[in-house]
Amino acid sequence: MDGVIVTSLSTIDNPKGSIYHAMKESDVGYTGFGEAYFSTVSYGEIKGWKKHTEMTLNLIVISGEIEFVLYDLNDFMSIRLSNSNYCRLTVKPGIWMGFKGISTDRNMLLNIASIEHNPNESVNMGLEELPYEW
Amino acid sequence: MDGVIVTSLSTIDNPKGSIYHAMKESDVGYTGFGEAYFSTVSYGEIKGWKKHTEMTLNLIVISGEIEFVLYDLNDFMSIRLSNSNYCRLTVKPGIWMGFKGISTDRNMLLNIASIEHNPNESVNMGLEELPYEW
Repeated sequence: MDGVIVTSLSTIDNPKGSIYHAMKESDVGYTGFGEAYFSTVSYGEIKGWKKHTEMTLNLIVISGEIEFVLYDLNDFMSIRLSNSNYCRLTVKPGIWMGFKGISTDRNMLLNIASIEHNPNESVNMGLEELPYEW
Repeated sequence: MDGVIVTSLSTIDNPKGSIYHAMKESDVGYTGFGEAYFSTVSYGEIKGWKKHTEMTLNLIVISGEIEFVLYDLNDFMSIRLSNSNYCRLTVKPGIWMGFKGISTDRNMLLNIASIEHNPNESVNMGLEELPYEW
């Protein structure tokens, strides 16, 4: 899907505790740093739909498992991220997104956003407003 | 301690899953984005000592509890971060740091670093090389 990039991330194992890459300035998908924050989504809950008009999202799931569904006004695309499918999901402005907590453990993502939070640059819709079977 | 900033972070509670702030471009301690990565430290293990000569670290503990010990060649300073003491720890170049896993659950930090990883800008010492009682 145009405007969506999935990038596999590496892990450096260490007996004292491992390192998990998230994002470098030189990585594909990096368009500036505005803000980083964590978001959790409880088991079975769905957050969405939301579309950003300016922000590029860079999403990394650091615990649990989260299903992301993206909609570009033509098609839906879905991907599940977790420690066992450890990837960064880049979502450019203009794409509708929703996400669902899949694990009964804590489902948590990091968003490295290209701009600071600004409620005026995002649009929300109710879950029932797009015909997607979660 | 000069070169160390502790900033309390806010959480936005939501029944579907909460938001945890980490860092904004406009925040105290932000001096540029080079890389973001996660590091874990097992229960009872200590990673250290390490000193960066160029990188500013911005450390957020997102699960478990981690004790950070800092040394500026004069004094030691220690702080424990966790979800119940949810703060960002900014460490400027020139400060020695070690950290220990305190929780038996997963102890994990996010580092929002001002430059990309470069092994030539950091210095390591053995744990026994500084007289600190962990």
